[in-house]
Amino acid sequence: MTDCLFCKIIAGEIPAKIVYEDSQVIAFNDIRPKAPTHILLIPRKHIEKLSDLNADDAALSSHLMLTVGKIAEMAGINENGFRVVVNNGPFSGQEVYHLHFHLLGGKQMSWNPA
Amino acid sequence: MTDCLFCKIIAGEIPAKIVYEDSQVIAFNDIRPKAPTHILLIPRKHIEKLSDLNADDAALSSHLMLTVGKIAEMAGINENGFRVVVNNGPFSGQEVYHLHFHLLGGKQMSWNPA
Repeated sequence: MTDCLFCKIIAGEIPAKIVYEDSQVIAFNDIRPKAPTHILLIPRKHIEKLSDLNADDAALSSHLMLTVGKIAEMAGINENGFRVVVNNGPFSGQEVYHLHFHLLGGKQMSWNPA
Repeated sequence: MTDCLFCKIIAGEIPAKIVYEDSQVIAFNDIRPKAPTHILLIPRKHIEKLSDLNADDAALSSHLMLTVGKIAEMAGINENGFRVVVNNGPFSGQEVYHLHFHLLGGKQMSWNPA
């Protein structure tokens, strides 16, 4: 039993348009997209925030990083370019407290990151 | 000899306000801050883009991820929260082709990530 939205997506209890998955991570479309392509990449392990990662998560951390490019390529946003955003805590507006990488692409982006 | 701005900062040829450094990464203040705290975290190794990371960079990748929280804590932006942004290629507006993580904090942020 969990109240975590993303854990429920991982468990298949809430539907999502999954674009990639492996033993450690899954990626699915954001339901409130902010760009033509807006994918969320998350670890299967419930970790609340990027700043909660510790040395035990080293392999998972590198896997997340190395999977970003793979998903961007699969989604067709690698050649023109894309942006990755991770919100961490209240000031960032983090809404779901399960670590997630936003992958945004498909348009020329402006630079107002905060 | 390199034309890379960030490699020149690493080499000490161009000044920067360095806030953290270790054997693999350095972090310094962005000269055009977009938030009260705006730090750039970069690997010492010249890697152009996030999507260029490969399996040989696994240890460096996890080190970058795990160092984010440490720097946020040192900079006093961890408790209230912060945002991490990585631009990758033309559509994202990536300006320096040496992988860098933007750490942004010190204010309540809006959600217009693209």
